[in-house]
Amino acid sequence: MGAKGAYDTIRTLKNAVPAGLLSLCNSAHKSQPYFRERNIMGLEFDEHLIAKLAAIVGDEQVRTDSQSAAIYGIDWTRVYQPAPGAVVLPKTVEQVQALVQLAIAENLAIVASGGRTGLSGGAVAARGELLIALDNLNGMRDFNAIDRTVVCGAGVITEQLQNFAEQEGLFYPVDFASSGSSQIGGNISTNAGGIKVIRYGMTRDWVAGLKVVTGNGQLLDLNKGLKKNNAGYDLRQLFIGGEGTLGIVVEATMQLCRPPVDLSVLVLGVSDMSAIMDVLNTYQNKLDLTAFEFFSERALQKVIAHGDLNRPFETPAEYYALLEFEQISADTEELAMTLFEHCVEQGWVVDGVVSQSTAQLKNLWRLREDISETISRWMPYKNDISVLPSRVPDFLLNVESVVNQQYPDFEIIWFGHIGDGNVHLNILKPDDLAMDEFQQRCDVVSKQVFAIVEAYDGSVSAEHGVGLLKKDYLSYTRSKEEIDLMKQIKTVFDPRGIMNPGKIFD
Amino acid sequence: MGAKGAYDTIRTLKNAVPAGLLSLCNSAHKSQPYFRERNIMGLEFDEHLIAKLAAIVGDEQVRTDSQSAAIYGIDWTRVYQPAPGAVVLPKTVEQVQALVQLAIAENLAIVASGGRTGLSGGAVAARGELLIALDNLNGMRDFNAIDRTVVCGAGVITEQLQNFAEQEGLFYPVDFASSGSSQIGGNISTNAGGIKVIRYGMTRDWVAGLKVVTGNGQLLDLNKGLKKNNAGYDLRQLFIGGEGTLGIVVEATMQLCRPPVDLSVLVLGVSDMSAIMDVLNTYQNKLDLTAFEFFSERALQKVIAHGDLNRPFETPAEYYALLEFEQISADTEELAMTLFEHCVEQGWVVDGVVSQSTAQLKNLWRLREDISETISRWMPYKNDISVLPSRVPDFLLNVESVVNQQYPDFEIIWFGHIGDGNVHLNILKPDDLAMDEFQQRCDVVSKQVFAIVEAYDGSVSAEHGVGLLKKDYLSYTRSKEEIDLMKQIKTVFDPRGIMNPGKIFD
Repeated sequence: MGAKGAYDTIRTLKNAVPAGLLSLCNSAHKSQPYFRERNIMGLEFDEHLIAKLAAIVGDEQVRTDSQSAAIYGIDWTRVYQPAPGAVVLPKTVEQVQALVQLAIAENLAIVASGGRTGLSGGAVAARGELLIALDNLNGMRDFNAIDRTVVCGAGVITEQLQNFAEQEGLFYPVDFASSGSSQIGGNISTNAGGIKVIRYGMTRDWVAGLKVVTGNGQLLDLNKGLKKNNAGYDLRQLFIGGEGTLGIVVEATMQLCRPPVDLSVLVLGVSDMSAIMDVLNTYQNKLDLTAFEFFSERALQKVIAHGDLNRPFETPAEYYALLEFEQISADTEELAMTLFEHCVEQGWVVDGVVSQSTAQLKNLWRLREDISETISRWMPYKNDISVLPSRVPDFLLNVESVVNQQYPDFEIIWFGHIGDGNVHLNILKPDDLAMDEFQQRCDVVSKQVFAIVEAYDGSVSAEHGVGLLKKDYLSYTRSKEEIDLMKQIKTVFDPRGIMNPGKIFD
Repeated sequence: MGAKGAYDTIRTLKNAVPAGLLSLCNSAHKSQPYFRERNIMGLEFDEHLIAKLAAIVGDEQVRTDSQSAAIYGIDWTRVYQPAPGAVVLPKTVEQVQALVQLAIAENLAIVASGGRTGLSGGAVAARGELLIALDNLNGMRDFNAIDRTVVCGAGVITEQLQNFAEQEGLFYPVDFASSGSSQIGGNISTNAGGIKVIRYGMTRDWVAGLKVVTGNGQLLDLNKGLKKNNAGYDLRQLFIGGEGTLGIVVEATMQLCRPPVDLSVLVLGVSDMSAIMDVLNTYQNKLDLTAFEFFSERALQKVIAHGDLNRPFETPAEYYALLEFEQISADTEELAMTLFEHCVEQGWVVDGVVSQSTAQLKNLWRLREDISETISRWMPYKNDISVLPSRVPDFLLNVESVVNQQYPDFEIIWFGHIGDGNVHLNILKPDDLAMDEFQQRCDVVSKQVFAIVEAYDGSVSAEHGVGLLKKDYLSYTRSKEEIDLMKQIKTVFDPRGIMNPGKIFD
């Protein structure tokens, strides 16, 4: 094994660690600095420590090579340098608990990592932390058809759970672009959302039971899969969306449901943003929509130019809404068409198409889902924000106006889960602008956008979490009192501050 | 006003307060006894304090007469003697905050009370507490058709919200026997469930935003109605089901939804308990059931003997399942009938009826809903417990066997929300047994039932909360570590221990 070798990247990183890090770590617990120098400064773990880790997980499951550091130490944000002190890959819940207890004894900071598809740096280990990768906790057991639940290790891939559900004639409805590699433990820790939230809710709604190892080294078995349990505070809810700062999700009892039948997709061209909301209102009061997404004409143009898709219809529109619903019966399509005619009569909708086959459904979905990949060549600035759905039209105009005023050469691409008030703001880098300069300008934009988010009582992180990327902006959404209370709650579960320190808040 | 008069009941209660109370209150915060003698010992509030309360809420809204104490100081448990120190009825959020700040300054324990329909003593003020009744915070505002939300004061009656939703062409789906008097703030504080949980979830799922006044006197505005907000820990979740021990719910943004269309009810006679689960499984995989309830033949016999209802069909069955679903289209009833035939072929179902009109639907529902009132003449021992749905049949047999063995003369009546694994155990008092003796025996039964609940990984309180009634049994469902963590979380929000002390845990 290569466990005894030290990271070359870490050695070079040693001097690159920003000076602010130490004070950052100390600010939470001034009385007790909990990082040993080797841990925070990115020095190699010594042989004694490596041996202790190996005694828990086995030699093969301790990694200190630079490749493992690069693989396991970052998520999809890509703006942080991975620099874990060591990577361990436990195979059991008991091993995770033993690792946390070792970390307590050795004063080691821990980062738990799942599928590493996060977009806020929540699973980044850039400061010599002990990285506990949960990939090997990937077993599924105790499926029960009546309860419609299955127990998943934290490392189960989202798609693995989706496929399992399908085999059992059931459905796991939380779905998003990274379902092929994101893991259940990570989904829970970030309360992952995605494209079906309007009907099925967030990951929070599908966690019937949760096993976690807290920063105290305790193994908690929360709720045990029960549908109803009003016996005291529901601690499970804190770990959902807790981004690994309170403890490590090691196992979850996931709820499944009836699969949707005969899905249909409508793509509608709408006259303006406020008309989209009228369309939403019209449809949601009559049909259970499984999705209500939107994208702009600019986004559509990029997708059409990029690949093999055609425009859904020729009539131009500034924005498009994508609606999905179940064809519960033969009446449903008729109802959808009646509502469509009403929307046209009202002047909200200029044209539209409805899928007549699975192939058409998939292609219409691609108009929305291919946007992210299509625009990636412009290295876009991205932001995941939300306001009340009813406030989205005003909010968008406001953001556009501020960005256009300051940087008229910036191209803005909007898309997102507008039925939930969740929009993804994308600003494309002009080809002739250097990356550094673009990033600097985007930092200015960020603050302005978050100020607007605050003015609209919105969220600086609708579904991606806070992690490292947004912690400086948490106060735009949460009050000082709330943040203080969060810190105190962290102290309850993680009194030594070893669990994913520096994430969400300092 | 009668505010200056002291409770006669409290005076006589003074000597009746159990000696254990003082140590009970001190156990949480040994270093700082927070009850003044007048508060814990049930002495009258002195004139200075009454004047301070009146300065906040006005003379008319401070009550110290015995009738107000009797009305506002208890819930539906009826086993505790109401003895608040004073009752205040604030009219605004600001007044509630000022009252909490006064309580902090004066070291007064607070009990918040809503519709007082709780069944666990969570809103009981039996120890001279300051009782803050939220009845006057009963305004509704800021309805938004697109967001489908409305902001409710804590004192809004459940039925008031249901009716409001109906007027707007929408639906508030949390429904239960006490909807005509329970209040939204109380529903949230107990995470109320009811008869539609299988489709619509608990109250937790309908709280888009929450304003609370913590034990620190802080006013928190949690989540602001957003559909998606992953910006740090979701503190809102702690107050939902927190039973007023962390703070007082003063206002909530409630989510509404599309109303169900053309509901139908099936009542099926089933051969045995495990067959009920096969029926559930068969139907839930094809239809979105809005309810799946059950009751026993004994329960049915009582209801038929008591009133004006007929048996749904003549074929006898040991248990009955009541299923409700939307007639989304003409196909739905056909599907329901096909599934019914399948269940009969499998030997699970012996007979059944389906409603053909709203009147029939209501009468079929009454077979289930009239049980509680019907059996009330036997002063039943009641328990609200849950296990995984798949384990209900075994669990019921186990409980019956233990009770029958010990007390063969006890008659057991089962009913409940079996689709959620939530059963209500009722044991009727034999007519020739004295109440005292019955209660003593039931205490023995309780411990045995909770031991079985524990063995089945179930909950000692599925939907009624813990309050005073079940706090001694919390450890049958929650581990020592969980309870310790809950106590620490209470300390974060309520460091002085003034919020509903002695509820959930000591």
